[in-house]
Amino acid sequence: MRKVIVQKFGGTSVADTEKIKNVAKTVIKEKENGNDVVVVVSAMGHTTDYLVKMAKDLSPDPSGREMDMLLSTGEGVSIALLAMAIQAQGYEAVSFNAMQIGIITENVHSKARIIDIKTDKLKKNLKEGKIIVVAGFQGVTEDGEITTLGRGGSDTSAVALAAALNAERCDIYTDVEGVYTTDPRIVPKATRLDEISYEEMLELAHAGANVLHPRSVETAKQFNVPLRVRSSFKTENLGTLILGVDKMEIYKPVTGVASDLSQARIVVCDVPDTPGQAAKLFSSLAKEHISVDMIIQSYARKVSNTNDIAFTIDSSDLDKTIKTLDSLKKDLNCGDIQVNDNIAKVSIVGAGMIDRPGIASTMFQTLADLGVNIKMISTSEIKISCLVDKDDAERALKALHKVFELEGDETAVVKGDLPDV
Amino acid sequence: MRKVIVQKFGGTSVADTEKIKNVAKTVIKEKENGNDVVVVVSAMGHTTDYLVKMAKDLSPDPSGREMDMLLSTGEGVSIALLAMAIQAQGYEAVSFNAMQIGIITENVHSKARIIDIKTDKLKKNLKEGKIIVVAGFQGVTEDGEITTLGRGGSDTSAVALAAALNAERCDIYTDVEGVYTTDPRIVPKATRLDEISYEEMLELAHAGANVLHPRSVETAKQFNVPLRVRSSFKTENLGTLILGVDKMEIYKPVTGVASDLSQARIVVCDVPDTPGQAAKLFSSLAKEHISVDMIIQSYARKVSNTNDIAFTIDSSDLDKTIKTLDSLKKDLNCGDIQVNDNIAKVSIVGAGMIDRPGIASTMFQTLADLGVNIKMISTSEIKISCLVDKDDAERALKALHKVFELEGDETAVVKGDLPDV
Repeated sequence: MRKVIVQKFGGTSVADTEKIKNVAKTVIKEKENGNDVVVVVSAMGHTTDYLVKMAKDLSPDPSGREMDMLLSTGEGVSIALLAMAIQAQGYEAVSFNAMQIGIITENVHSKARIIDIKTDKLKKNLKEGKIIVVAGFQGVTEDGEITTLGRGGSDTSAVALAAALNAERCDIYTDVEGVYTTDPRIVPKATRLDEISYEEMLELAHAGANVLHPRSVETAKQFNVPLRVRSSFKTENLGTLILGVDKMEIYKPVTGVASDLSQARIVVCDVPDTPGQAAKLFSSLAKEHISVDMIIQSYARKVSNTNDIAFTIDSSDLDKTIKTLDSLKKDLNCGDIQVNDNIAKVSIVGAGMIDRPGIASTMFQTLADLGVNIKMISTSEIKISCLVDKDDAERALKALHKVFELEGDETAVVKGDLPDV
Repeated sequence: MRKVIVQKFGGTSVADTEKIKNVAKTVIKEKENGNDVVVVVSAMGHTTDYLVKMAKDLSPDPSGREMDMLLSTGEGVSIALLAMAIQAQGYEAVSFNAMQIGIITENVHSKARIIDIKTDKLKKNLKEGKIIVVAGFQGVTEDGEITTLGRGGSDTSAVALAAALNAERCDIYTDVEGVYTTDPRIVPKATRLDEISYEEMLELAHAGANVLHPRSVETAKQFNVPLRVRSSFKTENLGTLILGVDKMEIYKPVTGVASDLSQARIVVCDVPDTPGQAAKLFSSLAKEHISVDMIIQSYARKVSNTNDIAFTIDSSDLDKTIKTLDSLKKDLNCGDIQVNDNIAKVSIVGAGMIDRPGIASTMFQTLADLGVNIKMISTSEIKISCLVDKDDAERALKALHKVFELEGDETAVVKGDLPDV
């Protein structure tokens, strides 16, 4: 039986007709390898920005339904053009939008989740030897309403299609050459990883590495779809393979380091030490769709019988958070609320740190040697994150990258692909 | 019961967001009149040209299927934007593409014919008080393949929707203020007609008046849908109502005059006078999709027992026609083939000329007085066309416009709306 390979090309990779011709060549090469090929594409270059601008001209707050109708046209253009480019090279190709295939999502606009993918049409066309070009980022409800998947949408479309077709692999072609030990824009000696586990990739993504949206990695992990992140422009490089930790050979305790400059820390002081206070606080934030990252609550002070609860959020949610907390202050019966957005989170990630003692102390000692003050610490099985002053982040990152032996000889220069929306 | 009004706006009327806001106002005014409103829109301004250009960059001969996938995105953009613009004015609106509604066509690309329109979704949304915005020019096959309707497609979409919804009227908003007695670019004293019959409109369209594509008029005639052609920009003008001849008061023998400069005349000389020769000739042309307009065959010459067969075609088909005739020459056993593309067809049209003698002779005498030589004549019940030298066309048109009392006092200045594709 022939193997199915799903390929995904982002907006930068199909930004103009010359680039689309190059994508066609990459697609055909995979077909020539003897595989069945399904290609997922995003909207061309800055199409989405242009469409959003027109919408904003017409309405300060356009309806989610019509916004999804509008944005879904972007991929409609790129799929047809790519199918034509493949046909022009003498290969059979056919494009489908999400409605034609039946990429079924929840009935939610601008950030719908895929709940089912019909495979009849896909399998029939693959059987006929055709290369299939699919619109990423979009879906359709059972009632025929057009939806979009939100950030990381096209990657998620590709992974979900790979899962539905039981594909051999899902190749995410992008502007970067793979997953690096850290951001090469900050640390030029960052090295490309040949392999990384889903779990590590997720921790790195959440820690601020922008190669893949966590959602697509989660979907790949859930369905055990091997993901390859590779360059659209240097297709001879195999990039980085993301797969189950059980299939990896772990050779270093730390796989990557990352910094996230977009966080803000909130400390809610003197919260009375009675049950349900933390639940009240964080459920109020959740109701406002504010994602909380690190949370620290220390022992209750004996004299006042109160706690300080500290947590971090994305800076873009800062105003909303302060508003929510202000309205909650009386109910919580707490003291001051302190805000600090001059902070950064520095993390080390590695499946190899499990059962290997001393990794945390090496991290803390490295920061201490630099004179970097640690404001908060949080850990998971495969990640240790420290909150530091924003000005210290770059020094900390470079030192950690070196001390955990992640440096390479080459200098990597990469830039990010255009995100969906 | 509330009346349904279908409105159609062409590409020029929705060329930018400012114009879309104006369209929204016109739509809302009709809603405020107490009617249910369904709006059909074309792609914005030059979108289609831009998409076609990209397709041509990728392939000298892109597949019809992918071309339809590509072009259908144009209306996808304009419907969502118009729905947003209507919503921004505080009215409920919802946009649908052809696939969502079920505008079912034949399985033919780039010039499909509508065979059915599902009305459930439309009726449900109208009942809920919503203004419905529908993508013109596109359809879908029973198998879910996207098709386009070809030239005049959006007008045809609008008329077919009006028929399916048993609409009170279909208003075609365009750059012109209505149907004129002749082309105002040639005869500034042309006057706008308040009413014209489907049949006259068809004859005028075929005679070179470009206000509406004949196909949409034919559909309106078939389902007896009153059509109003009116200005997008001067909405206070009611334009021209096109309706059944039985509902009209006929007040002048001639309704309009038109000239068509895009024709070429072919004379196939000395065709042996045996049965089946004309059939052979014209079926060969039909096979090549060459439309023939006027056909003249005179009496067979007694000496040679041969005929000359003369006919006119659109100049754009000239090369194809000559090629077809060359390959047919031996089989027809005919003589020379003469070609003249320095000609024009001048026509007078009017349902009132039936049973009113002297119209034809007035036309011929008018041309004779000008010294214009008539090369061919063809007539239908409500039209008389004469082929003349191209240089004589304008003079002939002006004189006929005057002699049949079509002149007005005002000077009309109009320009054409962008055609679909």
